[in-house]
Amino acid sequence: MSKLSSVFFLKDRLEAMNPTIELLKSHRSIRKFKDQQIPRELFEELIRAGQSAATSNHVQAYSIIHVVNPENRRKIAELAGGQPYVANSSDFLVFCADMKRAMEAAERAGAEVTRGMTEQLLVATIDTALMAQNVAIASESEGLGLCYIGGIRNNPQDVSEILKLPEHVYPVFGMCLGYPDQNPEVKPRLPLSAILKEDAYTDADDTALVTRFDQTMNQYYQARSSSNKDTTWSEQLKPLFTSKLRPHIKAFLNGRGFGTK
Amino acid sequence: MSKLSSVFFLKDRLEAMNPTIELLKSHRSIRKFKDQQIPRELFEELIRAGQSAATSNHVQAYSIIHVVNPENRRKIAELAGGQPYVANSSDFLVFCADMKRAMEAAERAGAEVTRGMTEQLLVATIDTALMAQNVAIASESEGLGLCYIGGIRNNPQDVSEILKLPEHVYPVFGMCLGYPDQNPEVKPRLPLSAILKEDAYTDADDTALVTRFDQTMNQYYQARSSSNKDTTWSEQLKPLFTSKLRPHIKAFLNGRGFGTK
Repeated sequence: MSKLSSVFFLKDRLEAMNPTIELLKSHRSIRKFKDQQIPRELFEELIRAGQSAATSNHVQAYSIIHVVNPENRRKIAELAGGQPYVANSSDFLVFCADMKRAMEAAERAGAEVTRGMTEQLLVATIDTALMAQNVAIASESEGLGLCYIGGIRNNPQDVSEILKLPEHVYPVFGMCLGYPDQNPEVKPRLPLSAILKEDAYTDADDTALVTRFDQTMNQYYQARSSSNKDTTWSEQLKPLFTSKLRPHIKAFLNGRGFGTK
Repeated sequence: MSKLSSVFFLKDRLEAMNPTIELLKSHRSIRKFKDQQIPRELFEELIRAGQSAATSNHVQAYSIIHVVNPENRRKIAELAGGQPYVANSSDFLVFCADMKRAMEAAERAGAEVTRGMTEQLLVATIDTALMAQNVAIASESEGLGLCYIGGIRNNPQDVSEILKLPEHVYPVFGMCLGYPDQNPEVKPRLPLSAILKEDAYTDADDTALVTRFDQTMNQYYQARSSSNKDTTWSEQLKPLFTSKLRPHIKAFLNGRGFGTK
C-alpha cells in the first residue's frame, strides 16, 4: 500500500486517502453488538497485532484478561457503572499494566529491583495503551466495533479481586469487542490548531477555539441519530473535574505497588 | 476492506491477512532517516488521524509540540540521552498530556474544578498514548518510519522549559518521524500465552515462558543485521528496574499539577 501510494502525487493521495488512514478517521465507539461470536483464530490475530506496538525498552509491560465467565462479566458491567455491553459484547477484555513479569525476570537475571517507581507506572500504562490501540485498529480493520471501558476504574479493587490480579498489575481499562449492531456518527474533534503547536506551548486562542468547538458539539449533539441533547463540550466535561471522580485511584495504585516512589 | 474480507472464509482471510493487520505486525522502530521532508499536508493528515483515536469522555487531553527550531531539537536530542535522530529526522513531535485546556473549559462552564487528581493523570496519559499510536500507524501506512522517544523523561523539567509547557501539561514522550533509511528486522514479542489470560491472572508458566523467550531474544540479538550482541530479554530489562531510572518523575509530575491527590 505504501509502495503504491508513493507513486501518486500528494494531491491525489490526499484526495484518495489511503485505506488505513481512512479507517483511523472513521472510528466511533460501538456499544451495541450483534449476537455473533468473533472466531478464536481472528481474536488471537487481533491480540498479536496489539503486541506488535512499540514498547518501552521492549518491556511489554501488559497482560490482557479475556473475561469469559458470564457471571464475572455481569459483575464487571455493574462495577463499571452499569454498562450492559460489558456483559453482552462478543468479547470483553481487561487491559492490565503489568510490571510483575518483567520485574521478576530482571530479578532472576540478578537485578537489584526497586519497586514502586512512578516512572514504572508511566511505562506500564503507556505500553498498555499503545498495545490496546493496535488491538482496536486491527479489530476495526476486520469490520468489528469496540468501546473502551474506563469505568472499570470506578471500582478497581473489586475488578482486581474478580480477576485475581497480583501486586504490580493494575487494570487500566476494559474493551468491548464485537460485530456492530449500530452505526453511530463519527464525533467531531477539536480543530487541529487547538492541539498542534509549533516549538512552544501557546493557548492564547484557546478560549475562542473552545467557544467555536462548543457550538460544533452543540450542533452534533442536537442532530445525531440517538441520545440527542442540548449541551456543549465544556458542559459535558464538568463531571470529569469534580473531586468525586475516582478519588480512590491514588491509594489504589499505591496499594498495587505503583507510584509510591 | 472489511466488507471485502467478510466474503472470504476465515482460513483464507488469515492466510491473506488484511493489509492493516499486516502493517501493524510489521512495526519496528526507525532511527535512521532520509534527508527528505514530510509534506505539510500529509503531516497534518497524520495528526488528524491521531485525533480520531478514542478519548476518555471526549476530553482530548493532549497537545502536540512540533519542534521545528533546530537548536531546540539539538538540545532535546542531548537531554534525551544523546539520540541524534531527534535532531535529524524529518519531524520531531513531543506528545504532551494536557489537562489545562479541558479544565479551563469546564471552569468557564461553571465547574468547581479539583486539580491534581491521579485519575486525571491516568486519563491524560492514556488519551495521549492512544492518539500517538494512531499517528504512528497513519505514518507507517504512508511508508514513513518512526521511533518513540521515552528519553525525554530523562530531563522532563528542562524539556518542559524549552517547550514553555504550563502547569497541567507534561511531556509524555517524543516521536521522530521521517522516511526510513534503514530496514531493521521486526523484533520478536512474548508468546501470546504469556500476555493473554482467561478469566483470571495466572503466571504459573511464566518462568518457563521467559526462559524460552530469553533464548528467542538471544538468537535475535546475535543474528540481527546491526548492533549484534550476546544478551537476553531478562538481561536487557535489568536497567529498567534500578532506582536510578528517572527517580525524579514523581516529584516532576506533582510539580506539574499531576497526581498530587
